[in-house]
Amino acid sequence: MSAFVVGLDVGGTSMKGGAVTRDGVVLHTERRPTPRADGPDAVVAAIRTFILDLSRVSPGGTELAGVGLCVPGLVTPDAALFSANIGWRDVPASAFAPEGVPVRLGHDVRTGGLAEAVIGAGRGVSDFLFLPIGTGIAGACVLNGSPYAGATGWGGEIGHTPVYPDGEPCACGQRGCLETYASAASVARRYASRTGRTAPTEEIAARAATGDDKDATEVWTDAVQALSLSLATYTLLLDPSLIVIGGGLAESGPLLLTPLADRLSTHLAFRPAPPLRPAALGPQAGMLGAALLGWHIAGHPDIGTTWTPDVPNTAPVP
Amino acid sequence: MSAFVVGLDVGGTSMKGGAVTRDGVVLHTERRPTPRADGPDAVVAAIRTFILDLSRVSPGGTELAGVGLCVPGLVTPDAALFSANIGWRDVPASAFAPEGVPVRLGHDVRTGGLAEAVIGAGRGVSDFLFLPIGTGIAGACVLNGSPYAGATGWGGEIGHTPVYPDGEPCACGQRGCLETYASAASVARRYASRTGRTAPTEEIAARAATGDDKDATEVWTDAVQALSLSLATYTLLLDPSLIVIGGGLAESGPLLLTPLADRLSTHLAFRPAPPLRPAALGPQAGMLGAALLGWHIAGHPDIGTTWTPDVPNTAPVP
Repeated sequence: MSAFVVGLDVGGTSMKGGAVTRDGVVLHTERRPTPRADGPDAVVAAIRTFILDLSRVSPGGTELAGVGLCVPGLVTPDAALFSANIGWRDVPASAFAPEGVPVRLGHDVRTGGLAEAVIGAGRGVSDFLFLPIGTGIAGACVLNGSPYAGATGWGGEIGHTPVYPDGEPCACGQRGCLETYASAASVARRYASRTGRTAPTEEIAARAATGDDKDATEVWTDAVQALSLSLATYTLLLDPSLIVIGGGLAESGPLLLTPLADRLSTHLAFRPAPPLRPAALGPQAGMLGAALLGWHIAGHPDIGTTWTPDVPNTAPVP
Repeated sequence: MSAFVVGLDVGGTSMKGGAVTRDGVVLHTERRPTPRADGPDAVVAAIRTFILDLSRVSPGGTELAGVGLCVPGLVTPDAALFSANIGWRDVPASAFAPEGVPVRLGHDVRTGGLAEAVIGAGRGVSDFLFLPIGTGIAGACVLNGSPYAGATGWGGEIGHTPVYPDGEPCACGQRGCLETYASAASVARRYASRTGRTAPTEEIAARAATGDDKDATEVWTDAVQALSLSLATYTLLLDPSLIVIGGGLAESGPLLLTPLADRLSTHLAFRPAPPLRPAALGPQAGMLGAALLGWHIAGHPDIGTTWTPDVPNTAPVP
């Protein structure tokens, strides 16, 4: 029997775990709540238990070769340094896994970016932006084949780059951040503040497309315009081969990507725009990236090139 | 006698050449005009002659080990693919150097960034932005120790990132580009259009500092504000250890760097700003970077760590 690793994606509200073989077969997946309200120690304990349970799901005789975890906040391969969201500080990787099992940590967005790079929409492309757009916006800058962390681990915070210097106030304390206009949460919030009605972003996108709902059109156009300006800046700075859009907002598919590609082109005077592509791994990107990290620490740094993970595509290429 | 290389920095108006030993001793430097008006073939011929002449300046018995050239436009290590400025297309590296001498090409800004990284203000720092601010603005993103070219060689075009989406028109055809507010040429142009008087940027900076010249204050403040917004975006995206400012505008020293550091901090809500430092190599950065490339192609990829080039510092650290 072949060995397997456990990959775990630790989010603020839920944890997604999987047991993944060396060939990329996902033996088992499971989702559990993150007991954030009970404090950081309870979260660490819940992760330990989750990993232990996942390590037992595989048929007898198989071996747990490693554990990979992706977590929010500031992280090194060996420690979860800080997360405002979860509240922990300086938790060593060894706190999460059974004794003697090698474990590696990764940053949540960059680990998703790693999965998209190796087995997802960026397969075969060494330089691209992975941009999941959900409650917030952060990106993974994949450069020379690897997600780039920056000098202190704070790279990729595109959501708080100033798109409109005197724009609307952002929760971060600044004004005009990308996230204020273009996150899924902001699109919903801005639509609700105009209409008094809450609606999922897919519905807002669909209403915007018909042209019958002026508020939907304005909110959606603002989101697309803010994103296109940010992506123009990214393109001019880092010249990516590709931009991979994921997260909740990407579920609108061509209603997002078609106008976004159009606007992006208009902002680039002297160079072509890189193609936009929907993320391939959806909400499984973090878990699969964590599984790749688990295999890396188990001694297989080049793993994944032959994997064909069985995950649904989120949207067609526009 | 030790061997030497020729390093040549090919600009739109002049070429700076040097003969540099393996220990970083600059045996000879020379500046010649770029005969751009005579067409691209004349420029190639002038470069050939310049290199040949420089290869003879060294005392008898020394050997020309290699040639490095930094050129504008789109470039690979082996060919100058395109320069709108000079007008050439697909010129192989071998066209520039004497037969049998290894030659390597580099992009002008990234080659300057290489020199600042190895022997200049970024020595010992693996992740920083080198931002020379002259007639135009382009940057070298030094990532993991090397200037990053991007997927197609167009990386670093920070001068045309949209700082003010509905701002003043830029020569590139877009609006509100960083370069439109903050290049040395734009500062001079914007001051002249307000006052009818031309003045060097150092004078405009000095006038802005006294507070007696409202036009100077406005123009300088606009430049600093645009730069600070761009550097905030860069910092949030790529988390550099350091930002190195060079070019003509940096000659104003603390009159630029002190308010710029101050404004940059105010744009960063949840993280500290990286320090700003003036470039160390001034107008010699391109030639010295080209000499490093010459030594690289001559088989010494790790050269430069012990070099202490004798170049004047441009400005004190603020």
